[in-house]
Amino acid sequence: MSGELFSEERSAEVVAASFANTPDPRLRQVLTSLVGHLHAFVKDVELTEAEWAVAIDFLTRTGHTSDAVRQEFILLSDVLGVSMLVETINHRTGGTSTESTVLGPFHMVQSPPRRLGDDIALDGKGTPCLVSGQVTGPDGEPLAGATVDVWQTNEDGFYDVQQPGIQPPGNLRGLFTADEQGRFWFRSVVPRFYPIPDDGPVGQLLAATGRHPNRPAHLHFIADAPGYRPVTTHVFVADSPYLDSDAVFGVKESLVREVPEVDDPARAAEVGLANPFRTLTFDLSLLREDRA
Amino acid sequence: MSGELFSEERSAEVVAASFANTPDPRLRQVLTSLVGHLHAFVKDVELTEAEWAVAIDFLTRTGHTSDAVRQEFILLSDVLGVSMLVETINHRTGGTSTESTVLGPFHMVQSPPRRLGDDIALDGKGTPCLVSGQVTGPDGEPLAGATVDVWQTNEDGFYDVQQPGIQPPGNLRGLFTADEQGRFWFRSVVPRFYPIPDDGPVGQLLAATGRHPNRPAHLHFIADAPGYRPVTTHVFVADSPYLDSDAVFGVKESLVREVPEVDDPARAAEVGLANPFRTLTFDLSLLREDRA
Repeated sequence: MSGELFSEERSAEVVAASFANTPDPRLRQVLTSLVGHLHAFVKDVELTEAEWAVAIDFLTRTGHTSDAVRQEFILLSDVLGVSMLVETINHRTGGTSTESTVLGPFHMVQSPPRRLGDDIALDGKGTPCLVSGQVTGPDGEPLAGATVDVWQTNEDGFYDVQQPGIQPPGNLRGLFTADEQGRFWFRSVVPRFYPIPDDGPVGQLLAATGRHPNRPAHLHFIADAPGYRPVTTHVFVADSPYLDSDAVFGVKESLVREVPEVDDPARAAEVGLANPFRTLTFDLSLLREDRA
Repeated sequence: MSGELFSEERSAEVVAASFANTPDPRLRQVLTSLVGHLHAFVKDVELTEAEWAVAIDFLTRTGHTSDAVRQEFILLSDVLGVSMLVETINHRTGGTSTESTVLGPFHMVQSPPRRLGDDIALDGKGTPCLVSGQVTGPDGEPLAGATVDVWQTNEDGFYDVQQPGIQPPGNLRGLFTADEQGRFWFRSVVPRFYPIPDDGPVGQLLAATGRHPNRPAHLHFIADAPGYRPVTTHVFVADSPYLDSDAVFGVKESLVREVPEVDDPARAAEVGLANPFRTLTFDLSLLREDRA
């Protein structure tokens, strides 16, 4: 330690000096930056002792709300835009591939392998939708045999894992293998917007700030192919409520798609859906693994 | 909400805009500043997804370590210098009165009222010490009847509440009333340095950064008088280990005092201590309540 005593003016430098003997240089860098920004925050707002006590209590309750199936600190990171920021920084595409967005907490089970054209809406409820697209590399080369992992909510806004005993396991999930042209297609229903869990401290924060807890309707994707970098993303439904106020800031313009209705009995019969039905087209472009 | 979608460049502004409808303007101010500094931190260090996951886990374990008698988030605030910064910002003295420092977690019981000259070392262990001083106002006016609340560790570095059944209740605590000249004096022992609890996540953080968990030897004071602002502070023992590396950054130069030995059998007999003994003199100056 430096031996310099604490002062308001030099508080961050004094604390940073206490990390001088940190063996891991990256840990030292991260903590030094953290302390600098944390102290700047306290000084900027001149945090009162009562406000500090509220913060200690909020963090403690956030910890106590977290367990094996509920992670309130991730929710907190989500609603403060930190999850999305970390995700964006670590998956910069330079505009040359499909943009990524947050994985979210509902990819907790393996998606069941399915065949192209299968219907993932096992419960037969909802507005029928044909989902299709093509997986390509950065030069537009089709990625034969690319894998496409998808999961979404039902029309009530719940994932299968949130409604055990109500939805069949694997409902609205599927792991597809694209054809020789990198193309995939399957049958589903139009996803619905839904609220993040808001019965804990994070929900109280949202309420105190006049924010709603909803995420706009979306379909999750993880696309991957040998020699290419996988992309974790969503496609958002263009006419969904909350598209401009996602509680976790996950929406990117490039990921929004119209879901037009098709009223064509012959086409409906061909794809195996009731007429009329909606269609969602989402092409995915992957970067090569060797890109630095 | 603004409707502006998330981007790396404008991440903090986009999240801050989501607080536009916060009814309490102070809450909005605090959260806007917090988000700005938090996002700046993530960008500065380009936090990886693995590091983010470590942070989520650390915060969760810090919450789980906290209960009715252990507050790990306060410890975290302490070792990052945040507690001391909040305390300092909220008790600026402009150099005209005794500086304050952290209250700490061991003022959890009422100090027993005692008479001037009493010995607070109920267990009779340790190096005898005569503590004395004067409480005055900003112009040096003696504050007759000022109250002086004191508590400290024993020679093993523990407060009485940490050793139930070993130390007598109220050991090394006392609430004194100063005389007509604002003077106080009592018998005690020289306090000892001690470690903050380091068997939880905060202890792991200290270990990972090569920091020790110790606080230098000190005696806690809360001095108060009608019409004046109370001061919560410590006096630190000048020859204590860790004086220049307090784990919670509580040391201020103005609060350090020598504890010289007196070898004078007649004086020892007069004050009721074994010869030789140490003496600690600490005068306290309070601000008037009407000071803005």
